[in-house]
Amino acid sequence: MAELIVSKSNPEIKKIHLLKDKKNRDESGLFYVEGIRPVIEAYSQKAEIDRIVYCPALLRSQVALDLINEIAVCSPDLLLKVDEKVFKHLAQKEGPQGLAAVVHQKWESLGILDDSTDGIWVGLDSVQDPGNLGTILRTLNSVGGKGIILLGEGTDVYHPTAIRASMGAIFALRIIRSGQREFVDWKRKVDFPCYGAVCESAMDYQAIHYPKRITLLMGSEQKGLSPSLAGACDQLIHIPMKGNVDSLNLSIAASIILYEVYNQIRKRG
Amino acid sequence: MAELIVSKSNPEIKKIHLLKDKKNRDESGLFYVEGIRPVIEAYSQKAEIDRIVYCPALLRSQVALDLINEIAVCSPDLLLKVDEKVFKHLAQKEGPQGLAAVVHQKWESLGILDDSTDGIWVGLDSVQDPGNLGTILRTLNSVGGKGIILLGEGTDVYHPTAIRASMGAIFALRIIRSGQREFVDWKRKVDFPCYGAVCESAMDYQAIHYPKRITLLMGSEQKGLSPSLAGACDQLIHIPMKGNVDSLNLSIAASIILYEVYNQIRKRG
Repeated sequence: MAELIVSKSNPEIKKIHLLKDKKNRDESGLFYVEGIRPVIEAYSQKAEIDRIVYCPALLRSQVALDLINEIAVCSPDLLLKVDEKVFKHLAQKEGPQGLAAVVHQKWESLGILDDSTDGIWVGLDSVQDPGNLGTILRTLNSVGGKGIILLGEGTDVYHPTAIRASMGAIFALRIIRSGQREFVDWKRKVDFPCYGAVCESAMDYQAIHYPKRITLLMGSEQKGLSPSLAGACDQLIHIPMKGNVDSLNLSIAASIILYEVYNQIRKRG
Repeated sequence: MAELIVSKSNPEIKKIHLLKDKKNRDESGLFYVEGIRPVIEAYSQKAEIDRIVYCPALLRSQVALDLINEIAVCSPDLLLKVDEKVFKHLAQKEGPQGLAAVVHQKWESLGILDDSTDGIWVGLDSVQDPGNLGTILRTLNSVGGKGIILLGEGTDVYHPTAIRASMGAIFALRIIRSGQREFVDWKRKVDFPCYGAVCESAMDYQAIHYPKRITLLMGSEQKGLSPSLAGACDQLIHIPMKGNVDSLNLSIAASIILYEVYNQIRKRG
């Protein structure tokens, strides 16, 4: 049985606490995820788990306790049992549920996408807000999407806010990192229909017959799609609007288009 | 010309600073909005403005300077000119633009909705997250919606995060506050088609022919729609999902349905 850790200065705990900073996440290739649902999702999606952190005093869920018991048998070294004070020290949100995990980041490159790749993908150009990024992952998973392509200098997909907003979807999706030029070069070589969402006038997003394999490209919250990425798209699209606001929230716009794609595909059967 | 306020202890500044707390917003009936776009929207939508706060050292936008000059002529008493230190003390977000306003809250009651009321309305049951609330206002405005009905004990629509996320839409929409029972009673008396979004199985949201006058009811993030409100709906609807996550973000779900309604209406012309 794992020993109860009661000190914030425990070296393992100190290392985990450092994961709040992007620099330390980048260096270690690890991230911290908390909550019963996301940890179970990480486990069932076979994410590479480095540590399971749990707090018996906080953990009420039977499903979570079953998971702990299962891991205690098959991989006991993964478990870190901590007291409430230590768990809350690590916690990133209020009302912690007593279950968290340290997980290895998993990056892929554009090379995995070729002429035979199927499914719905989203490319994000320099997205700034981790909540938007996580919410897009959540919707992308809801429409059965395959993965995300992070272009340029955006926020960290392993930022605690992005992880939380994704509601576990981050473990079901593939995550690709690419430079903008690298993407444009790739697009020239690979036949992969690419639709870019813009705010200005373009084709109505509902006027398109979307194929089953598609990349939806979205620009950053402030600047939209960069000219070079817009130029690489097969088609630019926009969402019609009335009213006084001049744009939709980025994750809202992405979700509206993703549901149009998904609705078309499910209607065609 | 207004005198430059350089002290955080200035009584006017202290009063404005108190608006960060809901209790003080409730008591005063005022709220604080910052940013060039939202303030201009408040002004052009004829919101009842109590004060315009501006910081010459931060304000670069010509449109904003024109507004200040216009107000200096017609209502000079509205203006509070402050230095950078004071403006940042009041600021709720980083990178302040140097323009903000204190505005009177504007609440209406269900009584304004009768058999002849037109347009798209959204009812929110105990919504908890001010970012979600503000984002729904932004999308509702984008589809030409009329207003929002806040039911039960939810977050404050005048919370700084909600104001910011609404991107000025809060000034273009009508805001109704109602108890849940009051809403159910009202629904019995008034002929106003009401669609309730639920996570469990219900009619596919795309299978409905939406009328031009509609209330879309959404439940809270944690608990969904309360049984009494669900019972008051003419039709329950849900958004089909694949993948591993078990629900969509509330503002995403609302926006996907709102765009379906809007797309149907604009196609019918």
